[in-house]
Formats: sequence, C-alpha cells, structure tokens
Amino acid sequence: MMKTMEWKEQTLYLLDQTKLPEQVTYIACKTWQEVYDAIACLVVRGAPAIGIAAAYGVVLGAYTTYQEQQSNESAVFIQAVCDIGKTLDRARPTAVNLHWAIMRMLDCAVHQQDHTVDEIIKELEKLAIQIHQEDVLLNKQLSMVGTQELSKIGKPLTILTHCNAGALATAAIGTALGVIRGLHQKGFIHMVYADETRPLLQGARLTVTELMEDHIPVTLITDNMAAWTMAQKKVDAVIVGADRIAANGDTANKVGTYGLSLLAHYHHIPFYVAAPISTFDRTIATGKEIPIEERAEDEVRCFNGNYCTPKQALVFNPAFDVTPHEHITGIFTEYGFISKPDMITVSSFFIENNIKE
Amino acid sequence: MMKTMEWKEQTLYLLDQTKLPEQVTYIACKTWQEVYDAIACLVVRGAPAIGIAAAYGVVLGAYTTYQEQQSNESAVFIQAVCDIGKTLDRARPTAVNLHWAIMRMLDCAVHQQDHTVDEIIKELEKLAIQIHQEDVLLNKQLSMVGTQELSKIGKPLTILTHCNAGALATAAIGTALGVIRGLHQKGFIHMVYADETRPLLQGARLTVTELMEDHIPVTLITDNMAAWTMAQKKVDAVIVGADRIAANGDTANKVGTYGLSLLAHYHHIPFYVAAPISTFDRTIATGKEIPIEERAEDEVRCFNGNYCTPKQALVFNPAFDVTPHEHITGIFTEYGFISKPDMITVSSFFIENNIKE
Repeated sequence: MMKTMEWKEQTLYLLDQTKLPEQVTYIACKTWQEVYDAIACLVVRGAPAIGIAAAYGVVLGAYTTYQEQQSNESAVFIQAVCDIGKTLDRARPTAVNLHWAIMRMLDCAVHQQDHTVDEIIKELEKLAIQIHQEDVLLNKQLSMVGTQELSKIGKPLTILTHCNAGALATAAIGTALGVIRGLHQKGFIHMVYADETRPLLQGARLTVTELMEDHIPVTLITDNMAAWTMAQKKVDAVIVGADRIAANGDTANKVGTYGLSLLAHYHHIPFYVAAPISTFDRTIATGKEIPIEERAEDEVRCFNGNYCTPKQALVFNPAFDVTPHEHITGIFTEYGFISKPDMITVSSFFIENNIKE
Repeated sequence: MMKTMEWKEQTLYLLDQTKLPEQVTYIACKTWQEVYDAIACLVVRGAPAIGIAAAYGVVLGAYTTYQEQQSNESAVFIQAVCDIGKTLDRARPTAVNLHWAIMRMLDCAVHQQDHTVDEIIKELEKLAIQIHQEDVLLNKQLSMVGTQELSKIGKPLTILTHCNAGALATAAIGTALGVIRGLHQKGFIHMVYADETRPLLQGARLTVTELMEDHIPVTLITDNMAAWTMAQKKVDAVIVGADRIAANGDTANKVGTYGLSLLAHYHHIPFYVAAPISTFDRTIATGKEIPIEERAEDEVRCFNGNYCTPKQALVFNPAFDVTPHEHITGIFTEYGFISKPDMITVSSFFIENNIKE
C-alpha cells in the first residue's frame, strides 16, 4: 500500500495523487504555502488526509514564523501561527476535517502561551504526529465496526462505492475501503463496483488501483452506470466516505453521492457512510448550511487533460453534494455504528460515547 | 449545422463523430462493409442516423453484388442483398431503427423480384433517399409536437438532456434536441443542462457543440451531477432520445437514462422521451426483452486513448439501459404525444393514428 504522506526531517512528503496511477511521485513540502497549494490542487485529497496534511502545514508555518520573526515573544508568535492556520483553513471549504485539525493545532498553540517559542513548536509537531497516528488507529476501529455490522448478513457481498475513501484518502486502510478491506479479510466480499467518479476520476485512478493491489475483486463502471448496475448485479450495499456531517446526519460527500443515495433507496439497497468523528460538524443543524465547493470549469471540460468540449462551454462543477439523512441507513465511526442517523440518534450517540468535540 | 451524412455519386459520406468537436472530417464509404464498420465504431451513431446509414449500406451492398455476381438473375441477386442486409443488421444490437430501415429495404427488394437487377438497384437507392428525407420531415413534426406540449407551461424552461439526440443523431434537427430547438425558437428555453455522457462523451462532444452553434444556452455537467443539478437548478423537464421502445413503453436509451428517470421521479420532474415511430418495437412486450449491447472495456478504462485506470481493471460497460414506462411522463413522436405510455395507451395511439408497422 502506497503511503499517502510522510513526515521526515521537517518536511512533509505528499504522494502526488493527481498523477496516479501512471506515476508514483512524492512532493516535498517545506513551507506551509506548499501544503496549502497541495491541498487546493488535490495533490492530497480525502477529508481525513487533508486534515493531517494541514496539521503538518501548521507546523511548517510555525518554523517559518520562527525563522522570519524578529521577536521571540510567544504571544506574537502564536498570533502569527494562528493567522497561517486560518489561511490554511481556507484551502478547501467543504471537508470539515481540515478545520477540525487546524483548530486542534491552534488550540494547542494558544494553550502554550506560557512556554517558549521553541517549546511551542515542539508541542505542535508532537500534536501533528499524534493526529496522524490517531487516524491509523481510528481507521482500524472504524473498519471493525463496519465489518461487524455487515458480516451479520452472512454471505459474500456485492458493494458499490464512489470516489476514493481508501488508504489514499487517509493515513491507513481508509474509511469506506477500510470496511471493504475488513469484510474481504473475513471472506465477505464478492465484488466491489467502483464508480469512476468524474470529473477527476478518483474511483478509476485511486480506488481501483488500491483494491487491485490488495487483490480485492473490483469492477470499474462509469458514474451513469450505477443505477443499471444496482438493477442488474444485485448490489447488496453502498458504502461511501464523507466530507462533512451535520448535526442531523445530513452528509456532504463527493458529487454524485446524493444521486447514488436516491438510486439505492429506490432499489431497497442499504446506504452506508463510513467516516471518523472528526467529520461531524454539529455546529450546523442540517446539510443546507454546508458550503459546497465549486471548482474550475476545465475539470469538466477536459478528460485527463484533453478538451472534449468547446473551450468556451459553460460548466456547473460542484465538487460535492449533500445526502439527506433520511437516505442513510447508518454511519460507521471509530466509536461504533449510528443506525438511522437523525438529530436525536446522532446526539445520543455523542452523549453515550462521551465524545468531546 | 454540420451534416451527419450525405449521399453523392454512389458514395455515403459520414461525418466522423468520434473525432468531434476537435476535427470535422468525413469518411467516404463505397462498400457496405465500410458502412458496417462505421456503425460498429460509432463514426455514425444515434438510432435514427444509423438506420439511414444502414439503408444506404444496403444500396452499396447491391452495387457490389451486381459487380461481383456472374448471373443477372433477380432472385439470386435479391438473396445476396438480403444476406448483406442481415449482416448489417448485426452491426449494433440495441437500436431497432437499424433493423427497421434494413427490413424496409429488403422488403422493397423482395417485392421487385419481377424486375431486372438494374431496376431493383434503382428502387433501393430511391427508397434509401426516401428514408433519409422522411427523417428530416419527421424531425420537424416531432419537434412541433414536443414544442406544443411543453410550451403550454408558459415560461422559459430549464431542460436536462442526456447523450446526443440531436442533429448528429438524425438527418435533421434531432429528436430531443429538435424539441429543444423548437422551444428555443419560441423563447421557451432558459437553460439546457447537458450530461457529458461517459464513456464516449456524446453530451460534451456533440450536444454542447450543437447547441452552442445554434446559440441555445447550454451548461455542461458530469453525469454524476444530474441529481444535484435537479435539486439546485430547478430543472423543469428531462428530455432524452430512445434506441428501442417496447410495446408497453419501456424505453432503451444510452446508459444513464434509467438512473435519470428515477432521479427525475424523486424530484417530481417530468421525464420525456422524443423518438420517431421507427423506434417502437411492438414485437416485444416489455423492456426485459431488449438486447443490451456491452461494448469494449477500454471505452471505460480510457478516453481518447489515455488510460486512467490499470489496464487490467475489470469493467462493466453496458452501452444502454432500460427505463420502465412508469417513469416516463410521455413520448413525443411525429404522430403526436403519447401521455403516460403503457401497453394500452401505446396500442391505442397506433390504432388511432392508423400507424402501419
């Protein structure tokens, strides 16, 4: 399994996912601006992964501030780091894990006000590494939760997934693909259908590559084949990742997810979301408040860099959409399974598991 | 408007639609085998257009037979032409217009048994030209039927369409796009959303190009954005073409149409099919009997020759799917509008309009 990122000698090495599967290259980020660009340009993508990358970005920002700053005063230093953090937070608007990781980092800095700049930097680096390591662990836990729930069906399953919520979107085995990996280990995967996921083809480029490397049976389809595949291939379940989950369970994820949820509903196919707790944003009541990123028109006008439509063609390019909680059978998290998510079940789940936000 | 095809001096010139919009080139077919290949490789595509091309293919087959055949006996000649027609009929399995046009041609040949080979060839050429000209006329009639029906709403409409059921799929203004053109002339088009239509991007390459040339407002989306576009952009209606319509109104069309019909249903958006009567195949009761063509895996693995997934990736590539009649609000034909198509309304429509099959 390729490593999504590595932190070594004050440098963040990011696997350039825009080049996969053709080229496996790493980009070395030595400044927070390079991390910002890598997130904005999708060198690193996937809600959990961009959270981790941004945490390291804050560390790199702290180094720069330390080098450039004349005074050694902690308060001034912390203010500068907070400004960098807030800029990094704007690299992409929809995935809340980015915001969550940066807030953890800035909170840590603010609480170190009595320490020296040197000590604060050490603490920040320690926390970034911790956020990174936590993701490895929670991927495992989340996988176990999903595997336990779906292996109850007691037969090898045909699963449909969208985009890439795998190793390449996280620091370890992935969220949706983590569950699929867990099921496969127990002999409970018959076939995975992977939507290619236009415009940037994360399904074709990343999910298929990941699953083939792990010898998990996978079949690629175009996004518009999902409905017919459900009707013809006896799909048992849909599992997708998430970029932000509102207090009532409404879930933003890669564009196409909303449509898939409606198609699954029509075909009586259960529809699962696999996401760590850091994906929840309970400051917003419903999905209507989730900002939906619209990206460059050329992403749609081109296919793998080649124009396939007039260059002046108008384009609507939302990168995400919102699936209403009514269409979600359940959410797999590292703390357990939230069945039939809504305002009450989600809230109860947080209370029962004593989850701090 | 580019001409889809032209018949001149015993040669069928076909616009190579696989090269659009980048290159506008014509392929000169002088043999029926070249027409077969052009249909199979999608140089010419769209149910009505391949019917017309195949009719000319039979004429070219008649020439070859005439040149190669030793005897001048009409019965032997007709038998050879029928064999060629039956081969041409296998070029693609789903669109019934291909079969319909070839059957008209072979029927004509068989009924000329008392004539000389020379006379039969003249009759065949005349009929192919007639089928071609009929398409121009029925496109207009169909457009009027759809325009009349939809202009009743009395406001500029936002229409979503899939694939290309336009000038490039027919000999004239198109079926679904014919209706859109008619509405636009009356000032009743606010915006057309065009699904790009993977794997071969007929929406991005053909529909957007066609509509932009006619200055009809069009916005390109990827197929997986259709649901979100319906939810966000107040889509008033979906209009698509068809490749085969069963006796009960079940409709085969480009893959993705079935899913769109479910999404339209969920969003309470009327869903229309625009197709000439030659698209009906009332020898089959329901859509379950329609053969669905599966095409080469590389169509999904790559675009324009560039792979975006491992070359060994498994692929499911159905070129069409079937929309159940329950999800079709109505069908626009050159004879009028079939509201709520089912076994009874379709049958009544044929009887009332005295349509011969």
